[in-house]
Amino acid sequence: MTKPISDELIAEANARELVALEEDYTALGRKLARTGIDIDRVKDRIAGFSVAVPSWGAGRGGTRFAKFPIPGEPTNIHEKLEDCAVINQLSRLTPRVSPHFPWDKVSDYKALREEAADLGLGFDAVNSNTFQDQPGQAQTYATGSLSSTVEATRAQAVEHNIECIEIGRQLGSTDLTVWVGDGTNFPGQQDFARSLDRYLEAASEVYSALPDDWRMLLEHKMFEPAFYSTVINDWGSSILAAQELGPKAKCLVDLGHHAPNVNIEQIVARLHRFGKLGGFHFNDSKYGDDDLDSGSINPHQLFLVFNELVEAELNPREGFKPSYMIDQSHNVTDPIESMLSSAEAIGQCFAKALLVDRDALHAAQEANDTMMAFQALRRAYNVDVAPILAKARVEAGGAIDVLATYRASRWRDRKAQERKAVGLGAGIV
Amino acid sequence: MTKPISDELIAEANARELVALEEDYTALGRKLARTGIDIDRVKDRIAGFSVAVPSWGAGRGGTRFAKFPIPGEPTNIHEKLEDCAVINQLSRLTPRVSPHFPWDKVSDYKALREEAADLGLGFDAVNSNTFQDQPGQAQTYATGSLSSTVEATRAQAVEHNIECIEIGRQLGSTDLTVWVGDGTNFPGQQDFARSLDRYLEAASEVYSALPDDWRMLLEHKMFEPAFYSTVINDWGSSILAAQELGPKAKCLVDLGHHAPNVNIEQIVARLHRFGKLGGFHFNDSKYGDDDLDSGSINPHQLFLVFNELVEAELNPREGFKPSYMIDQSHNVTDPIESMLSSAEAIGQCFAKALLVDRDALHAAQEANDTMMAFQALRRAYNVDVAPILAKARVEAGGAIDVLATYRASRWRDRKAQERKAVGLGAGIV
Amino acid sequence: MTKPISDELIAEANARELVALEEDYTALGRKLARTGIDIDRVKDRIAGFSVAVPSWGAGRGGTRFAKFPIPGEPTNIHEKLEDCAVINQLSRLTPRVSPHFPWDKVSDYKALREEAADLGLGFDAVNSNTFQDQPGQAQTYATGSLSSTVEATRAQAVEHNIECIEIGRQLGSTDLTVWVGDGTNFPGQQDFARSLDRYLEAASEVYSALPDDWRMLLEHKMFEPAFYSTVINDWGSSILAAQELGPKAKCLVDLGHHAPNVNIEQIVARLHRFGKLGGFHFNDSKYGDDDLDSGSINPHQLFLVFNELVEAELNPREGFKPSYMIDQSHNVTDPIESMLSSAEAIGQCFAKALLVDRDALHAAQEANDTMMAFQALRRAYNVDVAPILAKARVEAGGAIDVLATYRASRWRDRKAQERKAVGLGAGIV
Amino acid sequence: MTKPISDELIAEANARELVALEEDYTALGRKLARTGIDIDRVKDRIAGFSVAVPSWGAGRGGTRFAKFPIPGEPTNIHEKLEDCAVINQLSRLTPRVSPHFPWDKVSDYKALREEAADLGLGFDAVNSNTFQDQPGQAQTYATGSLSSTVEATRAQAVEHNIECIEIGRQLGSTDLTVWVGDGTNFPGQQDFARSLDRYLEAASEVYSALPDDWRMLLEHKMFEPAFYSTVINDWGSSILAAQELGPKAKCLVDLGHHAPNVNIEQIVARLHRFGKLGGFHFNDSKYGDDDLDSGSINPHQLFLVFNELVEAELNPREGFKPSYMIDQSHNVTDPIESMLSSAEAIGQCFAKALLVDRDALHAAQEANDTMMAFQALRRAYNVDVAPILAKARVEAGGAIDVLATYRASRWRDRKAQERKAVGLGAGIV
Repeated sequence: MTKPISDELIAEANARELVALEEDYTALGRKLARTGIDIDRVKDRIAGFSVAVPSWGAGRGGTRFAKFPIPGEPTNIHEKLEDCAVINQLSRLTPRVSPHFPWDKVSDYKALREEAADLGLGFDAVNSNTFQDQPGQAQTYATGSLSSTVEATRAQAVEHNIECIEIGRQLGSTDLTVWVGDGTNFPGQQDFARSLDRYLEAASEVYSALPDDWRMLLEHKMFEPAFYSTVINDWGSSILAAQELGPKAKCLVDLGHHAPNVNIEQIVARLHRFGKLGGFHFNDSKYGDDDLDSGSINPHQLFLVFNELVEAELNPREGFKPSYMIDQSHNVTDPIESMLSSAEAIGQCFAKALLVDRDALHAAQEANDTMMAFQALRRAYNVDVAPILAKARVEAGGAIDVLATYRASRWRDRKAQERKAVGLGAGIV
Repeated sequence: MTKPISDELIAEANARELVALEEDYTALGRKLARTGIDIDRVKDRIAGFSVAVPSWGAGRGGTRFAKFPIPGEPTNIHEKLEDCAVINQLSRLTPRVSPHFPWDKVSDYKALREEAADLGLGFDAVNSNTFQDQPGQAQTYATGSLSSTVEATRAQAVEHNIECIEIGRQLGSTDLTVWVGDGTNFPGQQDFARSLDRYLEAASEVYSALPDDWRMLLEHKMFEPAFYSTVINDWGSSILAAQELGPKAKCLVDLGHHAPNVNIEQIVARLHRFGKLGGFHFNDSKYGDDDLDSGSINPHQLFLVFNELVEAELNPREGFKPSYMIDQSHNVTDPIESMLSSAEAIGQCFAKALLVDRDALHAAQEANDTMMAFQALRRAYNVDVAPILAKARVEAGGAIDVLATYRASRWRDRKAQERKAVGLGAGIV
Repeated sequence: MTKPISDELIAEANARELVALEEDYTALGRKLARTGIDIDRVKDRIAGFSVAVPSWGAGRGGTRFAKFPIPGEPTNIHEKLEDCAVINQLSRLTPRVSPHFPWDKVSDYKALREEAADLGLGFDAVNSNTFQDQPGQAQTYATGSLSSTVEATRAQAVEHNIECIEIGRQLGSTDLTVWVGDGTNFPGQQDFARSLDRYLEAASEVYSALPDDWRMLLEHKMFEPAFYSTVINDWGSSILAAQELGPKAKCLVDLGHHAPNVNIEQIVARLHRFGKLGGFHFNDSKYGDDDLDSGSINPHQLFLVFNELVEAELNPREGFKPSYMIDQSHNVTDPIESMLSSAEAIGQCFAKALLVDRDALHAAQEANDTMMAFQALRRAYNVDVAPILAKARVEAGGAIDVLATYRASRWRDRKAQERKAVGLGAGIV
Repeated sequence: MTKPISDELIAEANARELVALEEDYTALGRKLARTGIDIDRVKDRIAGFSVAVPSWGAGRGGTRFAKFPIPGEPTNIHEKLEDCAVINQLSRLTPRVSPHFPWDKVSDYKALREEAADLGLGFDAVNSNTFQDQPGQAQTYATGSLSSTVEATRAQAVEHNIECIEIGRQLGSTDLTVWVGDGTNFPGQQDFARSLDRYLEAASEVYSALPDDWRMLLEHKMFEPAFYSTVINDWGSSILAAQELGPKAKCLVDLGHHAPNVNIEQIVARLHRFGKLGGFHFNDSKYGDDDLDSGSINPHQLFLVFNELVEAELNPREGFKPSYMIDQSHNVTDPIESMLSSAEAIGQCFAKALLVDRDALHAAQEANDTMMAFQALRRAYNVDVAPILAKARVEAGGAIDVLATYRASRWRDRKAQERKAVGLGAGIV
């Protein structure tokens, strides 16, 4: 197996932090033990936890105004895999990569799968792209894709999704994530009902092509690139669509795709309650689909989401197997650093959710002891779980201080000398 | 039949406006005829249109900070019916009153129905109230009603709703509107899934008590009085609950109960598409559930809602029979004036929606001619339809200038001498 | 003077509409006369009204996800001027173009000014661009421009703005509009106070270079491209900055740059009250800076803004000379059509604001007669003013039906054969 | 001095927690020492920190829909002081009470001050109330107070504020907090500029009556009870008003009074930058002015606010002396418990802000090392500072576990037997 960062460098960096880590881990262990929690069991849960990273997230994102590339950015799937391997090697939390087509097209997917495996990586959900026109494409997506009024356009979009499934089978994926940019910018531009009818008809053709063990994850989004309405605009539209498509269709929650003030953790609970929680795109936002680093703006909300996930795991109803992916678009940091920081933030929220005294919580809920129910969550949220994650990482060969170790590796500088430069411009890829 | 305002006063007031009305109506008729629209047919549709008014809307509402009563406000259902009769007599748009219990409790509902009929009024949806405690009530709703953890509280709430159905049968209603204030103010206060389970179980007991020709209208609300989560928080939760309850359960849309920026007209279309559009509470808002006068803040949105309703009527799918009610809470105007102004605004939006050239709209949508699809709506929206509504009113015995005629009647001054004063305080009733 | 559309074609198109227009104009005139309004005086005010169009608005905008070019789009300032001339020739409302540098750079600005004049156009406010890096640029704006921590970057941004002033002088402009993309994506990324200090210091250098009769228009924006904070984030920051810079600094309001639910018409009134209302970028939005067509989403809000402007004109306090520009970014229509439609929507709102019976409004306000104050606005808003604008247009040589006439001219088809194609990609230029 | 809770009970409760606290405090001290922070110095800063509680916050708040009183609620200022003394005795963070008039009117303020002093309490900012009518009041505030069109109403509001100052002098206050409910529910209801003119004129009369060492704190609010516009709607209006009034006028920030998504910590920085930061009303919110417990919804935002406050303290520019008050309205908890929990949350955020490595933060900001600037904040935020606050409390005679100790005291049960019941109804008092 190829390791992008040398084990020696990691070991050296860890050596400087190990005494402090042991001290903090031991102290936290004693504190948790007082409330009957075995820190090692929490650590083991963290060791078993993972979240995928998107191939495109290895490059710097941009806005419609500008892109500001950095030297050493990856410009193809091979370089992106390399960077994803760095993230996983240091964090031990991100063993899978979620590819996007046609961006990540290659001629030999078997070879690509082996290339990834050699880097310690597998493939997660396959993402189709019908929101952009590609050079030479027969039909334009200017007026929609799966919901287009143009039959040939819908057929092309269906065919592309089916091709993605085919590629995904070769890569070892079992999920197809479908997000369409379809929508309108003007009242009256399209009929809401007929647009959805067309979407559902086309989506059901894709659904029919799903292998038995695959899922189709529908991703809703309130706005952007369409600014008056979107076809799958919120979780309500998403779950009704998933109901119509069938049991393999599930709903995917991107944390930035909701109206202001919306209670996202409740949406998570609702989707699970009705058997349709498919997965997450983790990021954070303050205004819209800002695609900021996970937990950077509202870490408490991320914790509350994981609180629902742990609760759901304990009450699986119709099963519980959500897919987790980081989906950020960075314009101001090194994407590897942001992904390391985000994986850590996500892991911390999971750890905190595991620390919630659920018996106390449920008892307080049942007794309408609001303050104690709240305190059950708050006590867990306030715990500094960094030592648990660091301990799990170091035991798995990762870095205690992921950012410092990454910087010490001089990875980006080295790549800046090897890789070709990204051009100026705008947009996300 | 008792008419609260004398026909002579109305006739006198109309006499001053009639020449101008005829001139404007004729001019508009000529203009519409050029595009193939027969103004009289639109007028006939308006003549057949109506919207209910809520009994409690006849009194001045308040905020949690204060209530500012006006002399002559009604303080019981009899006085409220009298005021509602004024609204209907002048506007000819509001022949039904929606009662709220226990606020409107009387000992003899048969007599109440006759009293209303004598005033030219019928009864619309019955509203239950499980968001307030009444003096002497056995169980408190402090911690919820249909979703309470306390079995006796749920039973009390179910029983109250069933009593409302029973009263409604005597009054001639066929809808029960259920809005609960249930929710939480703290993360963790209640479990999202178990709360909904309890709600669904209790609501299904109410549902079982519905007569065959009744509907149960579920009203969702994002927040207030609960400020972290509510049990039926959005249209997604509402429609899933309605699906579980059964075919007589439908969703009711209050225009002020949504997250900021949400596309409400699309929600209307979605509910209709999935067979669950039950009705509306009309009002307007800028920030939250402001309960402002219908169309006062965003009349274009109200038009777009009616555009969906006209579209739905033409494409009934699983039937189209929405219930319409004004639901405002006035703290700065005479409620009769606000209701008159709001009924007019609602009727105007319906009239404008009728003027949309649907063939042109659909053709433009089909051809992705976005600008012409938009213009099809915009042309209709820009028409000043006031003469159509006035003409329909005057033909039905109403007033051309509803506000001026109401003021000329000195109704409120007269009532101020008859009715007892409302006390200071806060709140909506 | 060169006319892009032949006068004959316009005359022919008008001939088909003239009888109807006269009829509608006469009917409206009679209606208005009843309330003491002389329709011809309103028409004359419209004839004297104008709004600038942005050079970049002649091209199709894009989002970060994609751009969908149309055949015949302009790709340089000369072609853009031609398209702007079409808009002005048909609408008679847009005689000025607002250029953006370096996008519109040419070698000879005197010639450009003459070229525009020959097309019947002048130049409006000059826009600087320090939110994108240009090929070969010495300093990057990746971490800010006027507020950058890097002195050389700030100097470069100052120098660019001063160059814009210099170009503007040659083009006949008297305003410099300054919008910066400066801001942060992470809490802590920059210090709020020190960032503003640097901005103010750099902006004051630009200010010093302003000719005596020029103004510097500060444009605030809540978010995008920065998603945690921006340096000039709201009207509060904008007016405080303008106060520090001096009397020639004013605030520019873009209708899409505010937080959800914010009362924009009140901001307009506040800026005027404190002597700092500089101008507008007109567009519409539902979610963020959606840059949709003016008045397409919330025409009532646009009317309320113009109501404030007419009120301000009557109460000039420290003077009233706002600059008006359309600032949209179209991804789904022909930009010429959108600009024609938007200019019409803006002109209509101005006309409606002129129709408000201000004596009645002020009397009702003074008497706390809320309903009649509201009705004074609502009556004016409900008037269909299209005949007034059409009449003013036709008298000035424009088209009665601007969109139909434009389509009849086959302008875009003809240009599609002449102009080179725009490439795929993302972003606004 | 009278202590509402016996020292013995506190000591007993603390005895059960002391070993664990020492262990946690020592472990945290070691951890902080590694980064050069002396935990005792942080603890001393916490010991010197305090936040006022509002007298009305001792009672359960309500919404416009309902109030759900609990047995033992205080119903007059004497009982409220008693409850506030409990909060301060246990938390050691809330030694001052902020009174509200006329709610807290008594005949002898000298005696009231002594009564408070005997309970270990002083008085903070005085709050005037011109948003409600009181029985027997000459002029109504139905149409505004300081901005009313009615001269006598403005005079009455001015007089009331001056009376509040006079009372405050007797109570030892030095701040007058002015929040008015003035605003509108309809477009056109009032003129934005003339309303503000009247407000400023009336407010300047109040300002003139301020003693030399007093401040006048202007509290802005976006909406509620007015739902279209408010006179002092945002920080922009607030700071411009404060500028006009004079140097003793400052701006007060209530965390729940802003538009959705707004960056409140930046507003704090802006107000300080321009010399007008006067103080805070702490609470939390998800949707509007929800008045939820401080830090319960978004503790990270509260931390970011304190981060600005610590930064401001280090860069005092025109002085730094903000006033801190908790301003919550509880409908689901025992107000004493909520206040204890909130004071703790506020103190924790202050402690975390003190832990930020400011040299590292500033260096990273200067170097545009975005990730490390963010991490400087995040590292501090992640620390579990509970032991620091508990240690400071126990050293000052407070409780380690404030909620458990309060419950052990059976305070509310005891008061339920002594105090008269609060009636049903709605509203906040």
